[in-house]
Amino acid sequence: MSTRLKELVERLGGQLVGDADIEVAGIAPLDVAGTTHITFLSNPKLRSQAAQSSAAALILSTGDDALLGADYRGARIITANPYAYFARVAQFFAAQQSIPPPPGIHPTAVVDPDARIAPGASIGPLVVIEAGVQVGDQAVIDAGCFIGRGARIGEATHFHARVTFHAGCRIGRRGIVHSGAVIGADGFGFAHENGVYVKIPQTGAVAIGDDVEIGANTTIDRGALSDTVIEDGVKLDNQIQIGHNTQIGAHTAMAGCVGVAGSAKIGKYCTFGGAAMILGHLTIVDGVHVSAGSLVSRSILEAGQYTGFYPLAKNADWEKSAAIVRNLTSMREKIRELEKAIKSLTESRQ
Amino acid sequence: MSTRLKELVERLGGQLVGDADIEVAGIAPLDVAGTTHITFLSNPKLRSQAAQSSAAALILSTGDDALLGADYRGARIITANPYAYFARVAQFFAAQQSIPPPPGIHPTAVVDPDARIAPGASIGPLVVIEAGVQVGDQAVIDAGCFIGRGARIGEATHFHARVTFHAGCRIGRRGIVHSGAVIGADGFGFAHENGVYVKIPQTGAVAIGDDVEIGANTTIDRGALSDTVIEDGVKLDNQIQIGHNTQIGAHTAMAGCVGVAGSAKIGKYCTFGGAAMILGHLTIVDGVHVSAGSLVSRSILEAGQYTGFYPLAKNADWEKSAAIVRNLTSMREKIRELEKAIKSLTESRQ
Amino acid sequence: MSTRLKELVERLGGQLVGDADIEVAGIAPLDVAGTTHITFLSNPKLRSQAAQSSAAALILSTGDDALLGADYRGARIITANPYAYFARVAQFFAAQQSIPPPPGIHPTAVVDPDARIAPGASIGPLVVIEAGVQVGDQAVIDAGCFIGRGARIGEATHFHARVTFHAGCRIGRRGIVHSGAVIGADGFGFAHENGVYVKIPQTGAVAIGDDVEIGANTTIDRGALSDTVIEDGVKLDNQIQIGHNTQIGAHTAMAGCVGVAGSAKIGKYCTFGGAAMILGHLTIVDGVHVSAGSLVSRSILEAGQYTGFYPLAKNADWEKSAAIVRNLTSMREKIRELEKAIKSLTESRQ
Repeated sequence: MSTRLKELVERLGGQLVGDADIEVAGIAPLDVAGTTHITFLSNPKLRSQAAQSSAAALILSTGDDALLGADYRGARIITANPYAYFARVAQFFAAQQSIPPPPGIHPTAVVDPDARIAPGASIGPLVVIEAGVQVGDQAVIDAGCFIGRGARIGEATHFHARVTFHAGCRIGRRGIVHSGAVIGADGFGFAHENGVYVKIPQTGAVAIGDDVEIGANTTIDRGALSDTVIEDGVKLDNQIQIGHNTQIGAHTAMAGCVGVAGSAKIGKYCTFGGAAMILGHLTIVDGVHVSAGSLVSRSILEAGQYTGFYPLAKNADWEKSAAIVRNLTSMREKIRELEKAIKSLTESRQ
Repeated sequence: MSTRLKELVERLGGQLVGDADIEVAGIAPLDVAGTTHITFLSNPKLRSQAAQSSAAALILSTGDDALLGADYRGARIITANPYAYFARVAQFFAAQQSIPPPPGIHPTAVVDPDARIAPGASIGPLVVIEAGVQVGDQAVIDAGCFIGRGARIGEATHFHARVTFHAGCRIGRRGIVHSGAVIGADGFGFAHENGVYVKIPQTGAVAIGDDVEIGANTTIDRGALSDTVIEDGVKLDNQIQIGHNTQIGAHTAMAGCVGVAGSAKIGKYCTFGGAAMILGHLTIVDGVHVSAGSLVSRSILEAGQYTGFYPLAKNADWEKSAAIVRNLTSMREKIRELEKAIKSLTESRQ
Repeated sequence: MSTRLKELVERLGGQLVGDADIEVAGIAPLDVAGTTHITFLSNPKLRSQAAQSSAAALILSTGDDALLGADYRGARIITANPYAYFARVAQFFAAQQSIPPPPGIHPTAVVDPDARIAPGASIGPLVVIEAGVQVGDQAVIDAGCFIGRGARIGEATHFHARVTFHAGCRIGRRGIVHSGAVIGADGFGFAHENGVYVKIPQTGAVAIGDDVEIGANTTIDRGALSDTVIEDGVKLDNQIQIGHNTQIGAHTAMAGCVGVAGSAKIGKYCTFGGAAMILGHLTIVDGVHVSAGSLVSRSILEAGQYTGFYPLAKNADWEKSAAIVRNLTSMREKIRELEKAIKSLTESRQ
């Protein structure tokens, strides 16, 4: 299933330099691409490697083409963003090789007669769909998913095997939800009375926009009274926990193991490194980037990069530093005493 | 489905001031409550907002009623703990709207003939129940749960869809277990021999008390030789990991992403903020509160609030501070040298 | 189902001192072992407890036997590694009590006719197995597992209930995968273009060696272009996240809640404490031990123990220290000023 370069540029754009009839069988990174591959240059450090590549074709930027073009023997596709172009070429080849799931409802699925499943949707084996659910056209619900009463799934959204999507939750179009994700479990809400917890019913839902991807075993809780909201284009990695009534702005991305406590309001175009933790009832504005392993305990009201983790060290060095950290207050006190002593020495000399 | 105020106070107590026949259709927080709602005042900062509320009725404390009562036009329910009262009113309305699952066993469930299911229990589609399991009256086991050999589930306990509850584990009455939770997987126990791990069979189980809630995708491992124990009233949020042979005392609560290593002994009435991590083989007494993101590496033998996370900063500031933290030992050394220098200066002057 | 000591040493080795016909009904730790048990001494601090034990037999090392042997009244099994011996005895007793799953395919399982299931394998209820899957002899696939197209499962590997094992992934022999684990979900890979994420298809798989154990709700992502690799003997606890294209060397162990970002290359015989986080695109050599709660942000190129977490303190003390940490740069500045002041004082005196 190889493809001519002209077919790629017709679909994906870019300026082709070289033989448009060259066929490529797949895409590969510079270090492994062979003569049947198209490859790409997005890291300037690899420019000389690109020059020597035996790949049939090379995707590169206008700037790199000016520096490199003549040195490389194959065909070139020049584009503003070679890495994004690579992603689309890879999607093209992946789509060619994928086996589309058959539309229709597998005979072992348990689908309530009061659910509305678009004819072009595919419902896999042992799926459970409750009353009032709507599943859009081209949506794919893989084996063993559970979709609760009244939930709505948009067109071309794909649930991998064993997703749990609770009553009343909604997801838009072209979403991807990975296995083991649980959307719409109860938020963690209790009133405290005489040392005992009284459960606050969680009657909101989860509202998810278009083009959202949610990782394996990630959990997004339903809201207490209003909804938890995930806007368009948000990308969540695996094992993320999103507390109730959180709002995540469009095109924000979170790496694995991030946790967000309840009622956090997170802006658009933010990124969160792995295992970053965001406490509840705070605000993070658009364009904030939080490093991995950092705990956000207050609102962040200015865009920028924020960090807060303890530097790794050899254990023996850590033991010494940690012991000092525990007593930093006394260290500052010592500095103040030294300041006073010097001041008094200085004054007595005059 | 609206309700008269007198019906609420008959069920839930509290002192009603005003027209007992007023009907309310739901409960809402102060900022959104309209004329058909009952609302509540639990945060003193919202007192003036409460005075101006157009809600039909207001739940408030004796103290707030003395300060506010005359200013508010609607009916009042006076109670010692307005937030807990709110929770119970919300439960009342939620129960009115919930659709009770049908008692009995769904035809697609795979239930061993040697399991004992109370007639009032509800077993959903595609549930698997092995031999020797006991399910109590009014218990609800939603779609796709797995319940292993000999496990016991108490009255009125609710397993949401896709809970895994392994052989021999027990949970008491009125429990709630959310989707994706795995109770009773093997603890992580190995003997080390010549660089290779030899598995130690995990032959204990998990014993869970009454009124326990367990969050989505939370895992509680079975004990190695004796049981892992979760006492009455414990509340665990999502994505929590409880290692084997841990004991968690009654009415302790843990927020999302907390981890507890093996054989920790945790007291009653404790709280753990999100992503707090508790190492193994240590003791935490009753009434300990651990802040989010803190690592507990030693026993805590005195009640109180404990914290241990690195403060968040702009990345550039963090880089400087982290570099110093890495070299705190040399900084303390410098302070000692300064002390000596000053001492010698002082002495030489005398 | 009790066993004679001679039968144990015939199977497991070790030097037996005492009556070979003594029968033991189980193994128990020193503090609970009774007259029907065999027990073990692996912690030298418990030597006097061992001397007084009423257990029928004691497993101990040559060294401890020299110090203790005469004081203990029961039979002894002397071995180089008593803890590993204990593990094997416990395995022996656990195997005696386990109920082997019936070979064959449960009638409710949905198995593609184009899958190859060894006759000695056991496929539980409501399992879904897609086309091209191979399941080896003596493998056990418990209730509700999903195995994607073309995946391969080695001999005597055991999937507990509700494992998700995606298309093309492989696991070797004698593996154990716990409930809720998701192997082979898409890695988190996107190209960024005009503020929007473009998905990079994840076309690699996950390749897992022999004797690997994977904990409950752990996730291991498939590679982007090549495979994610888990070598022989690796042990992963619960709720671990392994990013795409990670390589984990043989006999490395990770405790619960560890996260590994993409493309990390981790050596053999390493250990990672609970909730340790390893960033992507870095290298960790063989024999590295990372403490719990530590974030590894750079490569570790030398074996040894590494640590990086903020020490826990009473909250009031933490507040003071954390405030100083945030301003450590100014504290170092003060020290430098003090140094200058002293230097100038010293010089002016001369």
